[in-house]
Amino acid sequence: MEDFTQQEQAHPAVHKRVQDSFDRQGLMAHLGARIAHIAPGRVHIVLPSRPEVTQQHGYIHAGATSAVADTAGGYAALTLFSEDSDVLTVEYKINLIAPAVGDHIEAIGTVLKAGSTLTVCQLEVYGVQAEGGRKLVANGQQTLIRVTRPAP
Amino acid sequence: MEDFTQQEQAHPAVHKRVQDSFDRQGLMAHLGARIAHIAPGRVHIVLPSRPEVTQQHGYIHAGATSAVADTAGGYAALTLFSEDSDVLTVEYKINLIAPAVGDHIEAIGTVLKAGSTLTVCQLEVYGVQAEGGRKLVANGQQTLIRVTRPAP
Amino acid sequence: MEDFTQQEQAHPAVHKRVQDSFDRQGLMAHLGARIAHIAPGRVHIVLPSRPEVTQQHGYIHAGATSAVADTAGGYAALTLFSEDSDVLTVEYKINLIAPAVGDHIEAIGTVLKAGSTLTVCQLEVYGVQAEGGRKLVANGQQTLIRVTRPAP
Amino acid sequence: MEDFTQQEQAHPAVHKRVQDSFDRQGLMAHLGARIAHIAPGRVHIVLPSRPEVTQQHGYIHAGATSAVADTAGGYAALTLFSEDSDVLTVEYKINLIAPAVGDHIEAIGTVLKAGSTLTVCQLEVYGVQAEGGRKLVANGQQTLIRVTRPAP
Repeated sequence: MEDFTQQEQAHPAVHKRVQDSFDRQGLMAHLGARIAHIAPGRVHIVLPSRPEVTQQHGYIHAGATSAVADTAGGYAALTLFSEDSDVLTVEYKINLIAPAVGDHIEAIGTVLKAGSTLTVCQLEVYGVQAEGGRKLVANGQQTLIRVTRPAP
Repeated sequence: MEDFTQQEQAHPAVHKRVQDSFDRQGLMAHLGARIAHIAPGRVHIVLPSRPEVTQQHGYIHAGATSAVADTAGGYAALTLFSEDSDVLTVEYKINLIAPAVGDHIEAIGTVLKAGSTLTVCQLEVYGVQAEGGRKLVANGQQTLIRVTRPAP
Repeated sequence: MEDFTQQEQAHPAVHKRVQDSFDRQGLMAHLGARIAHIAPGRVHIVLPSRPEVTQQHGYIHAGATSAVADTAGGYAALTLFSEDSDVLTVEYKINLIAPAVGDHIEAIGTVLKAGSTLTVCQLEVYGVQAEGGRKLVANGQQTLIRVTRPAP
Repeated sequence: MEDFTQQEQAHPAVHKRVQDSFDRQGLMAHLGARIAHIAPGRVHIVLPSRPEVTQQHGYIHAGATSAVADTAGGYAALTLFSEDSDVLTVEYKINLIAPAVGDHIEAIGTVLKAGSTLTVCQLEVYGVQAEGGRKLVANGQQTLIRVTRPAP
């Protein structure tokens, strides 16, 4: 878990590959999410708080929280594979630990174990206040499968 | 599990309470989801396929699939509690079993065990074709907690 | 889920393959578990209640409940694959819904979706009284991976 | 997660309470498990490898791995609560990341978030070789509920 504090950057080619794939996700644009950081085996995604992503009490919806957490984990895995690889979510489990309040949430996907077929990621989501408060609002675990992309 | 085929309807007051709460969820409106059926202990939510809910291959995003599954389970639980109760998701786990293709997906939340504090729901999501094809695309399990709403 | 009530039996060769593998599991013998039924895509395992499998209140331990549930799911998957296949648990999630009391527990693993690589099973565990009472005590969901056994 | 490297000890009264409860778990004695460390919010349990805890290939059975992981998480939570509290597992999810080989496995339960009703723990299990090798073999996440013990 040491890499949580290092601000290592992924190789520019990996960065581009992740960003290009993210930009093809209609849901991420529709929610207003953006990639905040891409490191080898770790991706951060930020989702600003706004009425379009809330549940009935005005907090960020567990579904939106999960969507960015799942996406962060998927791209964290993708950073570790070759160009002809793609990654699909097999399953994930997420605990909603505290109401998702804040100016935005930040989801961090971190690879715990990368395998040639299956990869396991840890998912964390923090509620972040503009003035700097930061609190864990969700924590999860995800299994992904690597697939080979058909040649174009 | 016998009630899967019965088309029982919840009491009109319960129906109204669930629909009113759903209508306050900014995310559900933003995704384009709607409640399709409300029975005691079971709620169906439909999400039409459109570019705003896709992942990078054009299928419905696991995050959108999960969001409607989680919501269906939460409201399934809510149908069983008194008017001053609210329900929050503690955690859920979902397997993405097949690509979420179809004209729409239909998420079904069904209460397996309702308790005074904790409730467990089964979550199923089907991909549905306009011409009638129907396929399980995701399956999950959810834990919810009942809380008492503050008096208005 | 239609096959829950049918008492179909697996082919004798499949039955033997499952039983032989089960008999090589030191843990199952040590706990006192036995296979009660083998159908295509569904296996039942029974664990009698005795002091060696309890937690601090004298109920059957969540770990013992999970162990037989996980094993039932694994063998349910194995019934569907060819002789040179083996099955490993990738992950599972289980809710302990009620105290596991009874003369024995019965774990039922049922295949929800079998794939060439990954298989998803539903796990149910019932507490069973000698006089016939039967109650759901745990419910779970499991992901398995098929591997090819090395030739002997 | 900073406390992973500190070797803080729980208060002797807490230590005794956890050990006494552990000693009443028939399953832990039957498996041969023992508590290796008790810190506030973190408990380590060791399970030696022996034929009684294996699956069909001779590795430690996922059920045994899960049983000690679940127990470690439960006692990690218990260290944080008052004497009249008890803790029950609501649910957990565990990924079996690598074959559980080694002279023993060590399960570590760590509280991520303690609440008055629900507590969330992280579960890790390492395979440990006598000569010092150490490898993550399972990783999980657990939800627990605090209950008040009846007065004796």
